[in-house]
Amino acid sequence: MRRLDGSAVGFESALADLEVPTESGERGGSDVTSTVAGIISDVLSRGDAALLEYTQRFDQLDAASLAELEVSRDELESALHDLPETQRAALSEAASRIEVFHRNQLGEDWSFDDGLGNRLGQRVTPLERVGVYVPGGKASYPSSVLMNAIPARVAGVSEIVMVAPTPDGERNPLVLAAAALAGVDRLFCVGGAQAVAALAYGTTGIPRVDKIVGPGNRFVAEAKRQVFGKVGIDMIAGPSEILIIADGSADPEWMAMDLFSQAEHDESAQALMLCPDSDYIDAVDAAVDRLLPQMERSAIIEASLARRGALIKTRDISHAAEISNRLAPEHLELAVADPEALLPLIEAAGAIFMGIHSCEALGDYCAGPNHVLPTSGSARFFSPLGVYDFQKRSSIIHCSSEGAAPLARIAKVLAEGESLTAHARSAAMRIAD
Amino acid sequence: MRRLDGSAVGFESALADLEVPTESGERGGSDVTSTVAGIISDVLSRGDAALLEYTQRFDQLDAASLAELEVSRDELESALHDLPETQRAALSEAASRIEVFHRNQLGEDWSFDDGLGNRLGQRVTPLERVGVYVPGGKASYPSSVLMNAIPARVAGVSEIVMVAPTPDGERNPLVLAAAALAGVDRLFCVGGAQAVAALAYGTTGIPRVDKIVGPGNRFVAEAKRQVFGKVGIDMIAGPSEILIIADGSADPEWMAMDLFSQAEHDESAQALMLCPDSDYIDAVDAAVDRLLPQMERSAIIEASLARRGALIKTRDISHAAEISNRLAPEHLELAVADPEALLPLIEAAGAIFMGIHSCEALGDYCAGPNHVLPTSGSARFFSPLGVYDFQKRSSIIHCSSEGAAPLARIAKVLAEGESLTAHARSAAMRIAD
Repeated sequence: MRRLDGSAVGFESALADLEVPTESGERGGSDVTSTVAGIISDVLSRGDAALLEYTQRFDQLDAASLAELEVSRDELESALHDLPETQRAALSEAASRIEVFHRNQLGEDWSFDDGLGNRLGQRVTPLERVGVYVPGGKASYPSSVLMNAIPARVAGVSEIVMVAPTPDGERNPLVLAAAALAGVDRLFCVGGAQAVAALAYGTTGIPRVDKIVGPGNRFVAEAKRQVFGKVGIDMIAGPSEILIIADGSADPEWMAMDLFSQAEHDESAQALMLCPDSDYIDAVDAAVDRLLPQMERSAIIEASLARRGALIKTRDISHAAEISNRLAPEHLELAVADPEALLPLIEAAGAIFMGIHSCEALGDYCAGPNHVLPTSGSARFFSPLGVYDFQKRSSIIHCSSEGAAPLARIAKVLAEGESLTAHARSAAMRIAD
Repeated sequence: MRRLDGSAVGFESALADLEVPTESGERGGSDVTSTVAGIISDVLSRGDAALLEYTQRFDQLDAASLAELEVSRDELESALHDLPETQRAALSEAASRIEVFHRNQLGEDWSFDDGLGNRLGQRVTPLERVGVYVPGGKASYPSSVLMNAIPARVAGVSEIVMVAPTPDGERNPLVLAAAALAGVDRLFCVGGAQAVAALAYGTTGIPRVDKIVGPGNRFVAEAKRQVFGKVGIDMIAGPSEILIIADGSADPEWMAMDLFSQAEHDESAQALMLCPDSDYIDAVDAAVDRLLPQMERSAIIEASLARRGALIKTRDISHAAEISNRLAPEHLELAVADPEALLPLIEAAGAIFMGIHSCEALGDYCAGPNHVLPTSGSARFFSPLGVYDFQKRSSIIHCSSEGAAPLARIAKVLAEGESLTAHARSAAMRIAD
């Protein structure tokens, strides 16, 4: 694997070279942007007819109506029922652990009296209807269904509408089973920017939702960006990343396999290991070479490591934490003997895996926390997907007749300072009650 | 004012006619989109030089360097010191009430043991650096500085960078004073899409931030949309709105003035009152006619009411709640004798003002809750700006050697089901410890 020295001159630019080039669609003006804008306009003006045409064109799937593209509750339940017992048990156990974890995120109403007789607070209620996008084809993952739909269910969302393209009409039974387990209410076999447009604006066949979550290709991501504001969206997801800070406590093969588990996603995934010990880096590098040929997805892993991977020598562990903080990785493994001692040095990361037994794969499937995490450094400001994404807050302001007066006096002065005299008079009316 | 009957045929479309037409910039392809994309590219490639040029062009303000456009901490403190005592006291009292309210929103770390010896939880930390956009000219409001910066300060953000255009170099002393009170760390007299670009990407003179909040014109809104993902943003703000549900408990003049307080913002602001009592609607309508000529901003109020305002007769109070829920208004006044009884019928609103003494103006300035609220129906999925917008969460997964094994068995089955065999092996390595 590529070796870098974190203390060397030129390290910053070597690291920058491993970043994914900015998507040209990211800031408007590109082909993706205008293609997606065209699809959205088309779905807005022609509704279901446009959806059916795009589904025919992109998924080679003929349907005369949206109803033909809807998967019935019975089919979902049958898919779950028909799974091999081992798979059904694993999926159910994962679903239950995800649910238990996410229950801790439920927001609650609160209020207090301000001492003047006014009650102030915040009310927390679930979103009414939510859309979950699940990619089709190779990237169609049942775990992703659980991670996106269960927090919505825990939040108390009334209706979860899932969309998933089914190229050539092929439905993935594991995905259907996961939808049944996660409590998805309706599932339509449509995808792409057209599915996002339908969820955002509503068509005859597909109901309008309040928020759209779930991963997708760059057309889906761009569509989500374009409808943002009309509906809520989760975040703009980039390629997946792992950053391991290692002190040599773990078997080098574990580190190699953890890097592979990220790299196997796709060729733009990033796998980095930071370590102060050159001998250990050598050992991990040797393990990578030894294990790589055994991997089923070795071509993807090799390409990903060649393009974006690196083993980085640091001065010490805190230097590793410093570099990690600059990158704000999606997944951060603290593969060290004393992860609790290292944690206070960490400023930003989507999920932090503490100690050598906490590998990313456990978090991806079943530890309980969400696997939808901020990528590309956005852990500086985004959080993991959670129940809080499916609840909304409203402020509550309840003034008494005595309590309103002192507030009105303040508001009047400030409103006059802003030349908003109707504000001032509206407030003043509550003084001379 | 316009009168509508909520039970009449054609009510829906009459109501829809009062909506603001979709901004053409909203979904790409328009002039605003490409102008903004050009400005952002320019700031990205030429940095401070581009910023200075745009500031010269748009604000008629010559400066040789960004340093000349920075307002010193001394100037901020002097502005606060020099305010008339009444204004300084009102601003301080408002700041203190806003702070007290927002402290209730502080998120906290939590974790639990899953019964297998694994510790799972969530860590909550402040964003490092945040940008606050404050519009210039007529819409330059000190209250907006308090509402945007104080939650960031409460969250524990290390550095708050404020930007505000100063057309012709005119600095608003109330805005500077509010910045001092709110604990703004640095203030630059730049605005527009160029200021947003500088905050998102960083230039020599302006540091890169993690999130940009604050209102602005459509160029600013579009710029925020375009940089979303590189940095966090608050929300896409549309024109301000009030919806009053009235049962006749309040003096009709109070209702008229509350409608005016929204309408005076600008001509696209919306003021609606819903009421089951025709006589009371008549009385409010008469009060509107009587009071309007007395208002300083009567021309704006009149235009706003003519374009988007309405008094709507409903069958009963719950019918009014139903219509309100469809609109999900930014500000909702429950001007009724028993607001607690009505509240359970309300599904979505940015801020809910309970009872006739709780007018919007009190919330705009000093009740304590934030006045940055979701507009244009986005209260269906957005929340008021809050401390939670300036904190980020990280998942914590700490597996013990015994606790990892049962998780690894589940993960292995699911990973194999998704053909992600490196995931499966990475997990399996934690079984045979």
